[in-house]
Amino acid sequence: MFTIRQIAESLGAEAQGDLDLQIAGAAEPQDAEAGQIAMAMAPKYADGLQAGNAQAAVLWEGADWQSYGLKAAIFAPRPRMTMAGVTAMLDRGQGFPSGIHPSAVVDPSAELGEGVSVGPLTVVAAGAKIGARSVIGPHCYIGADAVIGADAQLREMVSIGARAAIGDRFRAQPGARVGGDGFSYVTPEVSGAENVRKTLGDQGEAKAQSWARIHSLGAVTIGDDVELGSNCTIDNGTIRDTVIGNGSKLDNLVHVGHNTRVGNDCLLCGQTGISGSVDIGNNVVLGGQAGVVDNIFIGDGVIAGGGTKILSNVPAGRVIMGYPGVKMETHTEMYKAQRRLPRLMRDIELLKKAVFK
Amino acid sequence: MFTIRQIAESLGAEAQGDLDLQIAGAAEPQDAEAGQIAMAMAPKYADGLQAGNAQAAVLWEGADWQSYGLKAAIFAPRPRMTMAGVTAMLDRGQGFPSGIHPSAVVDPSAELGEGVSVGPLTVVAAGAKIGARSVIGPHCYIGADAVIGADAQLREMVSIGARAAIGDRFRAQPGARVGGDGFSYVTPEVSGAENVRKTLGDQGEAKAQSWARIHSLGAVTIGDDVELGSNCTIDNGTIRDTVIGNGSKLDNLVHVGHNTRVGNDCLLCGQTGISGSVDIGNNVVLGGQAGVVDNIFIGDGVIAGGGTKILSNVPAGRVIMGYPGVKMETHTEMYKAQRRLPRLMRDIELLKKAVFK
Amino acid sequence: MFTIRQIAESLGAEAQGDLDLQIAGAAEPQDAEAGQIAMAMAPKYADGLQAGNAQAAVLWEGADWQSYGLKAAIFAPRPRMTMAGVTAMLDRGQGFPSGIHPSAVVDPSAELGEGVSVGPLTVVAAGAKIGARSVIGPHCYIGADAVIGADAQLREMVSIGARAAIGDRFRAQPGARVGGDGFSYVTPEVSGAENVRKTLGDQGEAKAQSWARIHSLGAVTIGDDVELGSNCTIDNGTIRDTVIGNGSKLDNLVHVGHNTRVGNDCLLCGQTGISGSVDIGNNVVLGGQAGVVDNIFIGDGVIAGGGTKILSNVPAGRVIMGYPGVKMETHTEMYKAQRRLPRLMRDIELLKKAVFK
Repeated sequence: MFTIRQIAESLGAEAQGDLDLQIAGAAEPQDAEAGQIAMAMAPKYADGLQAGNAQAAVLWEGADWQSYGLKAAIFAPRPRMTMAGVTAMLDRGQGFPSGIHPSAVVDPSAELGEGVSVGPLTVVAAGAKIGARSVIGPHCYIGADAVIGADAQLREMVSIGARAAIGDRFRAQPGARVGGDGFSYVTPEVSGAENVRKTLGDQGEAKAQSWARIHSLGAVTIGDDVELGSNCTIDNGTIRDTVIGNGSKLDNLVHVGHNTRVGNDCLLCGQTGISGSVDIGNNVVLGGQAGVVDNIFIGDGVIAGGGTKILSNVPAGRVIMGYPGVKMETHTEMYKAQRRLPRLMRDIELLKKAVFK
Repeated sequence: MFTIRQIAESLGAEAQGDLDLQIAGAAEPQDAEAGQIAMAMAPKYADGLQAGNAQAAVLWEGADWQSYGLKAAIFAPRPRMTMAGVTAMLDRGQGFPSGIHPSAVVDPSAELGEGVSVGPLTVVAAGAKIGARSVIGPHCYIGADAVIGADAQLREMVSIGARAAIGDRFRAQPGARVGGDGFSYVTPEVSGAENVRKTLGDQGEAKAQSWARIHSLGAVTIGDDVELGSNCTIDNGTIRDTVIGNGSKLDNLVHVGHNTRVGNDCLLCGQTGISGSVDIGNNVVLGGQAGVVDNIFIGDGVIAGGGTKILSNVPAGRVIMGYPGVKMETHTEMYKAQRRLPRLMRDIELLKKAVFK
Repeated sequence: MFTIRQIAESLGAEAQGDLDLQIAGAAEPQDAEAGQIAMAMAPKYADGLQAGNAQAAVLWEGADWQSYGLKAAIFAPRPRMTMAGVTAMLDRGQGFPSGIHPSAVVDPSAELGEGVSVGPLTVVAAGAKIGARSVIGPHCYIGADAVIGADAQLREMVSIGARAAIGDRFRAQPGARVGGDGFSYVTPEVSGAENVRKTLGDQGEAKAQSWARIHSLGAVTIGDDVELGSNCTIDNGTIRDTVIGNGSKLDNLVHVGHNTRVGNDCLLCGQTGISGSVDIGNNVVLGGQAGVVDNIFIGDGVIAGGGTKILSNVPAGRVIMGYPGVKMETHTEMYKAQRRLPRLMRDIELLKKAVFK
């Protein structure tokens, strides 16, 4: 429970009206009831406010708050940033119990920091270290000699492989997997796939063979302030560790292959897949279902649209789109031309008739 | 164990021959043995029937059942609908034990309806409610204050987040995740990605920044008769709930982002990904690996082919395909033209020679 | 701990220098310390070797090992094959405890072979059989009457459905799912989607309907030497089993639909999705995020580039790419023409001016 004053102060935002009004939750403008703050940070929400019974709201700058029958209002200069602040305050969390649940299986050699919680039926293996105040949810597995920093928040059924090293304020959604083995195989003799890569299309005379496994001796290193989405997967490196930099966020079902390095403050959106041995810079944003082939680099600040398949190196700062991914303006130009193609073909037929007949 | 008569009556189908023949399972035509019914609902299965030892079969309409040495036959006017009926009768299930397993961790404040089963090592958190006759498989997690209706069937390792509200006859395959937090971040100042969206390609002068987290205060609301595939993920909403309508089915590894509303009776096929704040109508079918960008709508009855990336609103009833998704006939026309492109280029060279030289 | 001699003998490779040097692990050339072997199998690693303190290395053929200050060297004629051998020897594994953990729930009717380990909080259901020396990790679920061969290695949170039949030396990474139910539904009357498939785009007059479920009576059959990636999913067959052949490897988040047969020694790379009832030959390699529509075949030795969407049958030995997937050389030709399209359009405008004006 917070007062309007407390919320506004925490946001560094201006507030008007009854600053002592108590707020326990947030709601859409039309649904807000007493005790809830309506999130109405753009003029398009005015109708919803009018229709509902909101008593308090976060409003767009310059809104005439009293005309909506509100008792109090907070003004948001940058709406989504305000959303971050308000939702962080009002988050009720998952209600995981505190302390070490009696059904958890914690190896005596594991080291748990002050105030760590371990959920029901969670396993913490030998030699694992968990930093102060971290909350390990129900049904998690923390592998042997894995290290997790302070203030982590792991939801249910997260698994962390042996020897993973994870920074502070780590968050992982249900079913996130850190430290599966890398997908790495080789045939005794040169394979068709190897020939195809060299020749860009020709299998040559390679014969059918079985695959030998390259084991993963490395683990996964994750920086501070990283978040992993539900059921996403990060594989162990082969010799060195796979690396996720500080502040990077991975959405649901994202895949990061062995040896890949993701820089700081990257966003990898839903179902994006990064192959092995990719080098990704800082502040890179890859849209949903993007894909990246192995052994390339992606420079700082690259932004890729949803569904982009990145098949070659991308210099820093570039905005790309398509399959294969090309500069956004090239993509737009190509696509416009493609849409005109059927008409173009008719033009050419007319030209051919006129010129050759 | 059912008789041919019982199966035919349940299907509302015609049967001939020994209607008291006992059936315990189904088999492919060539593999069927005594006690099994051969599923041979099209003439292409005639050879398999001839080659095997089937004594009973579900046959296409008008088949000469006695010529295949059968003792009994059922005739299927709509083969796949018959398949639904027969497989529902003969499903042996997973053999999960009944009752509350002694190793389950059920909070005393949870309310379990009559005849509910809770599998080994499953956790039911405080305030959760589970409807009558529901079967919660092994290793599941039912979050705080979550509600699941009657007659649910949860396979192993399903997780349901706090405050999810789920209707009757819910089915979830192994590892399905309901209620991970949404993937929603914002930078303190305008980011390159925001500029790109506005300008369709230009990052502008945005500087590198870290991401602030927008928390999910909403949960997930799921209607009646919904099924979720293995390892699929549905995220919590930001302020209101993410919604899945009655009768909708989500395949394996499907992702539904925060705030998105999926209507009734939709099919989202394998690995389809829906971003946040999408509004999907009723009876929509999205083929495998389809993708949908955020903040658009998809009208009732839209059908998208496999791999379609939907980047803008789609009116009701449209059939679409491609990346970006366009009307099926436009896609076909564009694709045909593309295939002819290399020849077209040669034509243009000839024209240029003839005209300009 | 191995000597250089032991490693070289195991690889069948030539070694020089102090063959009794002891090796406990591997490292990148610049990071290798005493007791580690530097993996430097190409001349590009020479700088790293010079910069670091490696005492032993696996080198490219013909390298002047003494010039790098090494005490011993092994020479690798086929570098990745050597990598397979060295990493297999030096793999420290996950450190799962041996034996049946007291917290595991093993049904008395389950049969465990000699030397089987079952991790903490793992459930083995009634009638399951696990072959000798297999290691079932923590938090796994082995379903009723499932059979797993000898020498399996299951990581944490793997689930195996009822009646699955799996060969020897099976490996599964965290969260892999075998035996979810297939995604198979039918409407009472002909649906819009069915009409679209027949007409390639027209929904016809089909009305909105709800979906009836086709249950999965089949299970999953998996051969010897198969490996499944983290969170990948293989569905049960409808009447017969879904099949994965000997020696095939599936990467993270790969999906295999009901009834599909994958041949021997295939590689399905990250996030690849195979629909139902697909027939895939032997030695097929599908790049990351490839997709395959239902009810087609893919011949032996087919190789598909990353992101390829396979919408029709592919004859044996073909190399394909694109959406839809076409022969690699066709794809390259089409793509080159596409990139030239904007220029082409300007040419046509000039031609039209010259010819028609």
